[in-house]
Amino acid sequence: MDQPKFVLSASEAESMAQSLGLPSVLHLLPTLVQPAQSLARPPISNYHVGAVGLGSDGRVFIGVNLEFPGLPLNQSVHAEQFLLTNLAVHGCPQLLSLAVSAAPCGHCRQFLQELRESSSLQILITSSEPLPEKTLPFKPLSEFLTNPFGPSDLLDKESPLLLELHNNGLSLIVSEHDISKKLGNLCNGDCKKSDLDGNFNVLNNGFGEELEKNEALLRKRALEAANNSHAPYSGCPSGVALMDSEGKVYKGSYVESAAYNPSLGPVQAALAVYIAGGGGGYERIVAAALVEKEGAKVSQEDAARLLLKRVSAKCQFKVFHCCSIENGY
Amino acid sequence: MDQPKFVLSASEAESMAQSLGLPSVLHLLPTLVQPAQSLARPPISNYHVGAVGLGSDGRVFIGVNLEFPGLPLNQSVHAEQFLLTNLAVHGCPQLLSLAVSAAPCGHCRQFLQELRESSSLQILITSSEPLPEKTLPFKPLSEFLTNPFGPSDLLDKESPLLLELHNNGLSLIVSEHDISKKLGNLCNGDCKKSDLDGNFNVLNNGFGEELEKNEALLRKRALEAANNSHAPYSGCPSGVALMDSEGKVYKGSYVESAAYNPSLGPVQAALAVYIAGGGGGYERIVAAALVEKEGAKVSQEDAARLLLKRVSAKCQFKVFHCCSIENGY
Ligand SMILES: [Zn+2]
Ligand SMILES: [Zn+2]
Repeated sequence: MDQPKFVLSASEAESMAQSLGLPSVLHLLPTLVQPAQSLARPPISNYHVGAVGLGSDGRVFIGVNLEFPGLPLNQSVHAEQFLLTNLAVHGCPQLLSLAVSAAPCGHCRQFLQELRESSSLQILITSSEPLPEKTLPFKPLSEFLTNPFGPSDLLDKESPLLLELHNNGLSLIVSEHDISKKLGNLCNGDCKKSDLDGNFNVLNNGFGEELEKNEALLRKRALEAANNSHAPYSGCPSGVALMDSEGKVYKGSYVESAAYNPSLGPVQAALAVYIAGGGGGYERIVAAALVEKEGAKVSQEDAARLLLKRVSAKCQFKVFHCCSIENGY
Repeated sequence: MDQPKFVLSASEAESMAQSLGLPSVLHLLPTLVQPAQSLARPPISNYHVGAVGLGSDGRVFIGVNLEFPGLPLNQSVHAEQFLLTNLAVHGCPQLLSLAVSAAPCGHCRQFLQELRESSSLQILITSSEPLPEKTLPFKPLSEFLTNPFGPSDLLDKESPLLLELHNNGLSLIVSEHDISKKLGNLCNGDCKKSDLDGNFNVLNNGFGEELEKNEALLRKRALEAANNSHAPYSGCPSGVALMDSEGKVYKGSYVESAAYNPSLGPVQAALAVYIAGGGGGYERIVAAALVEKEGAKVSQEDAARLLLKRVSAKCQFKVFHCCSIENGY
């Protein structure tokens, strides 16, 4: 076989638990942590973290940590962030419990605050001591981050949280018609400096129609990702779509944290989706699109370009600007 | 007067406490939180955070939060990080207690783990409820971040922690002689693309000697900052020196977190030092130098250039590479 599995259906998880003689799917989570660790990609630290979560729909999800050489460490993705991205892209509405190989860091405990009823999220650290067989020592997030700062300090109760349905009401500023007519003029001034973008234009001139089709697809998927983005604090949602060498598309939504710094960038989210989707080596990523608001206070463009260039030097990168339909910007 | 004060001497703090009729300097900390908040620079959130800390030498230090429009939120500096940078640059060996306007976020609780005996650091949140007059409800960091992940999971006990004496044994790869002879050839290929660097070269050709002197000074200070940098996890220390329009130099050291993402970049640290040193508006920053290892797994160069460009578009930026004397790299 077979690509590593980052999602188990509810029935797969149940039959796996049964065949291992485990009393419940909850007991399955810690058994999957070590296999998950082997899927991590931490070339800087070589510190492999695996997180395994149980969704409210009975599915089991895997998360691993990612590190990107040549960039600052704040570009890294933690296993818990990967896990939540994996739930989000698969439409799982809630994370009930997670088992993780090492004590979650403060950054992750903060990121997890973005979940509805985050305080009751059950966490099990598998490395700390031999686990008892029957009652696993899950503890709620509220015991890991007491007196938290989080969404409730800043948002209305009705505001959707992470994993809840988002529609940011964004549309692209340039119409479909304009795009197909004026391809090549979309890029703002900054893009022209970029090798990534340069490559895109070169290929664009060479291949024509198929590239236009691919670009339209990436743009559409990136807009979808931006519409699903959780960015209630800055009001600057964004989304990225990646295309691999076989034309398969992976999309990632920017996820904002109430505490700002733990926010997960849209390229990071898309790379997690790429890996979870069996995407293989990063060098197979051949094209990428970012959708964000023009002149946004929180802009991903420059950071996205740098990260993509590091992971897949020849990746073509395009930026498209959107506006919010409700308020005209 | 006077520039806002970010450091009070022990005697200043004591006489201020006395004149306010307070039983101790510890009681002074919460009274300074609100004035500190007014010094914050959060143009994205408008959420002003102030932190006031008591050092083991009796001095009182101020920290505020910084945000940078046009960049991802992980570029932000939290008040607690600013505070520690302020202690570090003033050579204060330990932080005993801090009062802060809002509950510290998980990112900061993690960052504070880099201190020796971090678990006993005393924290008071001033916004939560009216404070009692006599016994202030300080609580140790260990109650805010239980079962932490931190330096003790990764480092020897002897390894210096944040605020402890660091000397990373770095020296510049190019000799002083070479530098004065071959000025202009130091820059690696990437630098040439940058507007920032472009400006520098233009000015360089125009002004000659004084610029050479300034560049040598900035390079020296940035190397000092890199030698003080706390980067035990990646082994990639770095430092930045900024020069304002009056020729005053401010240096900032990169501070790494065991959890990677909460690490504080060297430009961020230098901007905190700039503000604490009365530097005023960022546009007064006219030149900057970064020292880091060539081809480092954790490189600050690209991110530093983007941030500097955002805060002071005309700032000249140069990168110098160093190696570790002990091991040849
Ligand atoms: Zn983490
Ligand atoms: Zn914080």
